[in-house]
Amino acid sequence: MTEFQIEVRVTPRRGILDPQGKAVGGALASLGFAGVSEARVGRLVTFHLRAASDEEARGQADAMCRQLLANPVTEDFDVRVQALAGSAP
Amino acid sequence: MTEFQIEVRVTPRRGILDPQGKAVGGALASLGFAGVSEARVGRLVTFHLRAASDEEARGQADAMCRQLLANPVTEDFDVRVQALAGSAP
Repeated sequence: MTEFQIEVRVTPRRGILDPQGKAVGGALASLGFAGVSEARVGRLVTFHLRAASDEEARGQADAMCRQLLANPVTEDFDVRVQALAGSAP
Repeated sequence: MTEFQIEVRVTPRRGILDPQGKAVGGALASLGFAGVSEARVGRLVTFHLRAASDEEARGQADAMCRQLLANPVTEDFDVRVQALAGSAP
C-alpha cells in the first residue's frame, strides 16, 4: 500500500450562477481593485489516501467526488493524485 | 495590459482546527472509504485580472488575499498567476 496525496478541485459548472464568485468580484471592485472579471469560488479538498496503486487511488477519489464531495448537477471536479514521498510502495 | 488567470488557494493553517475537513473525513469513512486521513477543506478562488505584468498581477492578487480572500489569522494562501493565451501584452 502506498500513501497518496489527493487534491480535489470542485468548481461551479460554467454557465451555472455562482453567487459567491459574484460577491467576491463585487467586493474586490469596492476595495478598488480594477480589472477583475470572471471571479468564481470553488472548494479545494485535500486528504491522504492509502491505496495499492495510482489508478486505484484515482478511482476511489472519483467515487468520493460523485458520492460526497461534489454536486454532480451544478459542479465540476478535478482529481489530482500524487504519491507521498517516503511512503512504501 | 495583459489578462491573467489568477488562482488563489486558501487553506486552513496547519494546526488550526478544520471542522469542515473533519466532517468530510468522517463522512467518507461512513460511506466505506477506508484509508483516508488528513482531510482538509479550503477555497479555490479564480478570476481574470488585467495588469501590466506578471509581477503586478501577483502583487495585486497578494493584496486581495490579505484584504479579502483569506483570513490572515487562520488561513494560508497561495497565488498562481498565468497569462491568458491570446491576450495582448
